[in-house]
Amino acid sequence: MNTGGYAGKTAWIDLTHKEVEITTTDSELMKLYMGGTGFGVKLLYDHIKPGTDPLGPENLLIFAAGPLTGSDSPSSSRMAVTARSPLTGAVGMATSGGHFPSEMKYAGFDIIVIKGAAKEPTYLLLDKGRVSFRSAKKLWGMNTFDCQEFIKEDLPGNGYRIACIGQAGEKISLLASIINERRAAGRKGLGAVMGAKKLKAVVVRGDRKVAIAEPERFQTALVELLRRYKAHPTLYSSFSKHGTSALVDGTSELGIFPTHNYSATGLYDYAEDTGYETQDQDIVRRNPCRCCPAACSQVRISQEGDYPGVLTEGPEFETAWAFGGNTGVSDVSAIYLADRLCDEYGLDTISVGSVIGFAMELYERGIITSKETDGLELNFGNHQAQIELIHKIAFRKEFGDILADGVVKASERIGRGSESYAMHVKGLELPAYDVRGAKTHGVNYSTAFTGGDHNRGYAFQEIFGIPVPISYDRFSIDGAAELCMWNQIMEMALCDCPMICAFMISEGLLRDEEQGNTQELTERRIGTVSELVSAATGLAFTPAELILLGERVNTLARCFNLREGFTRADDYLPERLTVEPIPGGPSKGALTSLEEQDTMLDRYYAAFGYDHGGVPTKERLKKLSLDFVTEDLQKAGLNPR
Amino acid sequence: MNTGGYAGKTAWIDLTHKEVEITTTDSELMKLYMGGTGFGVKLLYDHIKPGTDPLGPENLLIFAAGPLTGSDSPSSSRMAVTARSPLTGAVGMATSGGHFPSEMKYAGFDIIVIKGAAKEPTYLLLDKGRVSFRSAKKLWGMNTFDCQEFIKEDLPGNGYRIACIGQAGEKISLLASIINERRAAGRKGLGAVMGAKKLKAVVVRGDRKVAIAEPERFQTALVELLRRYKAHPTLYSSFSKHGTSALVDGTSELGIFPTHNYSATGLYDYAEDTGYETQDQDIVRRNPCRCCPAACSQVRISQEGDYPGVLTEGPEFETAWAFGGNTGVSDVSAIYLADRLCDEYGLDTISVGSVIGFAMELYERGIITSKETDGLELNFGNHQAQIELIHKIAFRKEFGDILADGVVKASERIGRGSESYAMHVKGLELPAYDVRGAKTHGVNYSTAFTGGDHNRGYAFQEIFGIPVPISYDRFSIDGAAELCMWNQIMEMALCDCPMICAFMISEGLLRDEEQGNTQELTERRIGTVSELVSAATGLAFTPAELILLGERVNTLARCFNLREGFTRADDYLPERLTVEPIPGGPSKGALTSLEEQDTMLDRYYAAFGYDHGGVPTKERLKKLSLDFVTEDLQKAGLNPR
Repeated sequence: MNTGGYAGKTAWIDLTHKEVEITTTDSELMKLYMGGTGFGVKLLYDHIKPGTDPLGPENLLIFAAGPLTGSDSPSSSRMAVTARSPLTGAVGMATSGGHFPSEMKYAGFDIIVIKGAAKEPTYLLLDKGRVSFRSAKKLWGMNTFDCQEFIKEDLPGNGYRIACIGQAGEKISLLASIINERRAAGRKGLGAVMGAKKLKAVVVRGDRKVAIAEPERFQTALVELLRRYKAHPTLYSSFSKHGTSALVDGTSELGIFPTHNYSATGLYDYAEDTGYETQDQDIVRRNPCRCCPAACSQVRISQEGDYPGVLTEGPEFETAWAFGGNTGVSDVSAIYLADRLCDEYGLDTISVGSVIGFAMELYERGIITSKETDGLELNFGNHQAQIELIHKIAFRKEFGDILADGVVKASERIGRGSESYAMHVKGLELPAYDVRGAKTHGVNYSTAFTGGDHNRGYAFQEIFGIPVPISYDRFSIDGAAELCMWNQIMEMALCDCPMICAFMISEGLLRDEEQGNTQELTERRIGTVSELVSAATGLAFTPAELILLGERVNTLARCFNLREGFTRADDYLPERLTVEPIPGGPSKGALTSLEEQDTMLDRYYAAFGYDHGGVPTKERLKKLSLDFVTEDLQKAGLNPR
Repeated sequence: MNTGGYAGKTAWIDLTHKEVEITTTDSELMKLYMGGTGFGVKLLYDHIKPGTDPLGPENLLIFAAGPLTGSDSPSSSRMAVTARSPLTGAVGMATSGGHFPSEMKYAGFDIIVIKGAAKEPTYLLLDKGRVSFRSAKKLWGMNTFDCQEFIKEDLPGNGYRIACIGQAGEKISLLASIINERRAAGRKGLGAVMGAKKLKAVVVRGDRKVAIAEPERFQTALVELLRRYKAHPTLYSSFSKHGTSALVDGTSELGIFPTHNYSATGLYDYAEDTGYETQDQDIVRRNPCRCCPAACSQVRISQEGDYPGVLTEGPEFETAWAFGGNTGVSDVSAIYLADRLCDEYGLDTISVGSVIGFAMELYERGIITSKETDGLELNFGNHQAQIELIHKIAFRKEFGDILADGVVKASERIGRGSESYAMHVKGLELPAYDVRGAKTHGVNYSTAFTGGDHNRGYAFQEIFGIPVPISYDRFSIDGAAELCMWNQIMEMALCDCPMICAFMISEGLLRDEEQGNTQELTERRIGTVSELVSAATGLAFTPAELILLGERVNTLARCFNLREGFTRADDYLPERLTVEPIPGGPSKGALTSLEEQDTMLDRYYAAFGYDHGGVPTKERLKKLSLDFVTEDLQKAGLNPR
């Protein structure tokens, strides 16, 4: 069998017993799950038992690259990090870019599966095919930047790439992320899983090239992908220039930029102070992931404001929202500092901004007072308090300890009706799109297997009218469930399994307007990725197979969650979004009623072949080569029809 | 002529015209001034006119290594950075270690002389003998850590060493330092000179070895130096283990640890909270300069306190004092953070701590109020306000702009008698030894050519009773002037010209008790350095010549200052130390009266062959091969006898 694309090896690492087994990456896994998230979801499903404590030694932490990672395919230096999430209890998966994912392949590994827990702080070195355990005792307590610097100084030679946790992960904050360079595998508390395993860092270095099975065919597909991306009227011209910051302006124009913890969407305009025109002035350089022509990641330094001279890679749009409009802060320098601190401490910017916005709303409503907040006056817009809270969350100090595990845990701790202001799905804090005015986004938030996540099936269609303006009505539920399904499938098929950045393949995500129905989609839109992956691996990933694969991964992930006890009831938006209309602006009055949600869920389930409770039918499982799941669901008391 | 030891080249760089001239390092300069500070002082004297604006293009900025730098001689990876100081107007010289100094030699250069000023932000690259000008436009605004990281990312390959300024230097704060790695050429506003030249960084990389003229002889001397250092009963055992932090305890025991801007020395005990026992718990690693067996530089991370998780290289003793006892702060984590911020912003910790202590005393005395301090309550011990002020000083924001140029300028701006609390000599803020209880230190503070500086002739004898306890009475002026002279000469002869760390040769600094008089000193104490430097260079630096060289550099530097208008009146301690006795503790009651100072100055001048006004005699100048100075002094209206 040809293993072009793949590095060929999987490292199984047991921290408890300090044992390593290196196996050949499973060929069926390659064919059915391709890479990245596919690998992560399948291995997690297979190797951890239902009810496994996410912070216990039995949880797995899986780093998985894709078959294109490390090749010349643009924007493919990406990986999926997967574990059972301690924040949600569901599949915890986050992708990240940079150079680490490619280097992992060069070191010889497609997948790194970590189980157990070390007795003493440890880091793992995967150097040119060899795995070793190293003491991280001296690194424990360091922030992620210092940690990376000190590891590089300690190891002989050059070329190491490092993914590590900061103090937040060490303190098992459920908002902790994993940082490589200045990038995050940010959400779902994966940093806490690493911290609970006393694993400070994973270091990779290699010298192997990624073989390509059919180089000429690969080159042709690659050029085609680049051509289409560059011809893209919005994405390339905007993301390459402004990073994602222009989305502050774009979503504000649509009236779906949530402000003040979703309580004031449309009432304030943060675009002027925190949008791309302001941020562009601060750009000092681009910092592309390996082999990326878009280079959306910009490094900025604040020139003015209350915190001048703060350098940060970012802030990404979501971060600019989380610490900007969401908490009422309009000083970009304060946003940059919040971003930088979160990167240093290893904290997820979306969830941290969310939990701060949540606390601010409670404070403004008098549900909590400064007695509980260590004297901090948590009014919206108090950026000093925001910075102070980030410090406190990272170290679980005082009021920071209340907030350090996200809005659900915080509302449990605070009580007094505070749960009404906890903006989350399945325990994952909501990102920066007010889904009351973007129904397909809403279906995605409510059904994504990772919880309230914008990345598992981002509805480009609602935000960008590209490549031709589409007629899709973001206020209507018509077609929303089906479009969401399509996006979720495409996200896996085109992005999260081959590991291509979503920005590169947005065209493939477009619903075919001529057909008007996702079921009848022609295959041509995903032809390029099909060509690329097939040429790289020598395995025939036809467009039809890609679509099937995308559905397979989504459905298997849902089954993981079902096995953990998730039900239809977990597939709903926070109540507030169903009863409180957007108070002002271009989307004023929009909400998503419970009835609308019911309807959309029914349609979404039907499209995916799930029953009314969200459980897949036997037939559909069989079609997806997921027969093995049936028994597990039965054991869990669910009876697939 | 044998140029063992030396790299052989001097780079003359004109930023205004973007011109570079590379010359052979002058052989007479080598023989008479040896290296480091000797080079800096002589070139500064020769190449800038009296009255040159320290912040103008005509000022020079000189990086000079020593003949041992880059060799295997222990603790010799050091350099002197010299300019006319914008803070004092006198010779501005600071030494620094790390790897940069050695790398500069490997790149082929003994000396880098920078004049002019760039139009746009620039950095210099000295790569394997070649000099190039590079745009620093994108680096402008970055802190020193980010700047070093980004330069390394931008340049091809590895092995670069970088000295740069942070935001404070860009803003021309006269407290700005130059940072390489996490080390500082800290004092006298050298970072402001660099900032005024729009020079963000100097980058060096090389591959040449430092040739040794007589390898076997060199090896023997080197082993002897190490043997004596390791046998040292205090220095090696203490500095290697604790860094310099044990001096917090040591000086506290002697009652000369100044607290609350010198107003409360002996009244509070900061040793328990900020001394070595507390700091030792936070050590994560040593970070030695190249080829140093002592490794006094420790990296620490705060575990507790109000700022946990702060990593810093240091704090050096002086820093632990400046942001600790001096400002009434006893939370070490707050000291670490202050240290780290100063390193990042490129600020001198001693002067910044001093000017904050000064402001705090004014506040406590009601001379300034919170109206002037932007609402900050500047009571001693308010570490939040201290941190806030560091941010403000770095960016010259609000009250920070008042403080950003040191205590003299601050007291001029504030008026109202505030100058009484400005602790400085010649405009340089005083370091962490209360000289009222350490007379020889006092003579050194008052006479050092760089101003109130502990490093130009540190009186080890008063602090460490080593190698045998000595009978020297630190409360008596007897012998203080002569001992200070000896120390100042030795500092140049054994440390600042060959560029050996002062810690390595402290034994050589001991006054010979058997003789009891510096004039009759035997030469044996400096024999090892004489051997080392002679063996390295092939030039005969006899002990007698070393002593002469040490005196020569000190006296030439004094002549530079005389030429700039300095007089005897500038060689006095702040008035407060002459009238207010130490209020408590083991040195309670000590002060240094004006009469005592007069007497010590007379003796000091006499020992150095200066007249009552501090002007060297013609005869002495001749003896020191400084005949060329006579005419300059005459032109300046001074008439050497």
